[in-house]
Amino acid sequence: MRKALVDCGAILYGDFTLASGKKSRYYIDIKKASTNPDVLRQVAREMAGTMRANDVKVDRIAGVVLGSVPLAVALSLETGIPFIMVRKEKKDHGTGKLIEGVYSKGERVLVVEDVVTSAGSALYAIETLRAEGMTVDSIYSVVDREEGGRQKLAEIGVQLTSLVTATEVLGK
Amino acid sequence: MRKALVDCGAILYGDFTLASGKKSRYYIDIKKASTNPDVLRQVAREMAGTMRANDVKVDRIAGVVLGSVPLAVALSLETGIPFIMVRKEKKDHGTGKLIEGVYSKGERVLVVEDVVTSAGSALYAIETLRAEGMTVDSIYSVVDREEGGRQKLAEIGVQLTSLVTATEVLGK
Repeated sequence: MRKALVDCGAILYGDFTLASGKKSRYYIDIKKASTNPDVLRQVAREMAGTMRANDVKVDRIAGVVLGSVPLAVALSLETGIPFIMVRKEKKDHGTGKLIEGVYSKGERVLVVEDVVTSAGSALYAIETLRAEGMTVDSIYSVVDREEGGRQKLAEIGVQLTSLVTATEVLGK
Repeated sequence: MRKALVDCGAILYGDFTLASGKKSRYYIDIKKASTNPDVLRQVAREMAGTMRANDVKVDRIAGVVLGSVPLAVALSLETGIPFIMVRKEKKDHGTGKLIEGVYSKGERVLVVEDVVTSAGSALYAIETLRAEGMTVDSIYSVVDREEGGRQKLAEIGVQLTSLVTATEVLGK
């Protein structure tokens, strides 16, 4: 998976200064992967395989708007499990819903994310889903940047499974 | 296709008063279709077949955020053509881009929409894509509500192809 991400330009190596001011030896432009159908399909197949291996049984897949929606769609098509989309904020027009799609209280949901850094948007999505009476205990991401997200998720009872970690990206 | 939309609950028959105040004999809840992987796949396959039949050759598929993104993803996976996502307004955080994904000036783009009514969001997306130097002359939608959208698109040189029309929905 790391190779596929490098080959499509989603992982760049060099000397980067992130928005936070931190220096990094790599940069992730994950949309290069998620808008490329071949890479997106490969990601979805690998996640579906991991779900089977971990015996993950859920009623819905949830993608956080906007970045993780393509992944949720691809994983839904791969597994046959329907998906929902969780907005980061209430939109001020249209239906005004925080969660788009069909769901019911009591359902088990797998959240998917493209990149988990400090897990801010994932935590918000999980809170939104739980407030609607859904159960979330697992999140799958393409990349775990290993910057505290895993711990924060564990603190609220959610286990992070990622296809690639920062350690692997850096070849350590 | 009409039957699949009715079966999944995306088309409801009855007496409805729309947000505009107009009366309607049917109501479309298209997210029931676009978040259902079986129906979404069927839509994408039918669109891909229509693209082949019409000899549509494009460099990118563009989905309007948020409703038409699942369709753009599914059609991308079905055809192998990469997709981009066009926002309706500049987001105030993150990259702040109106178009998410990889694209270049001079490329030909097929816009996809779930439902075309008066084509407002499609017209905005086409304007955004053309402002970036891309060529748009075709749009595919799941449903054409036949409320003036086709004419407005034709006025700017874009042909609308839909899988289902309001006339078909009403069984006329």
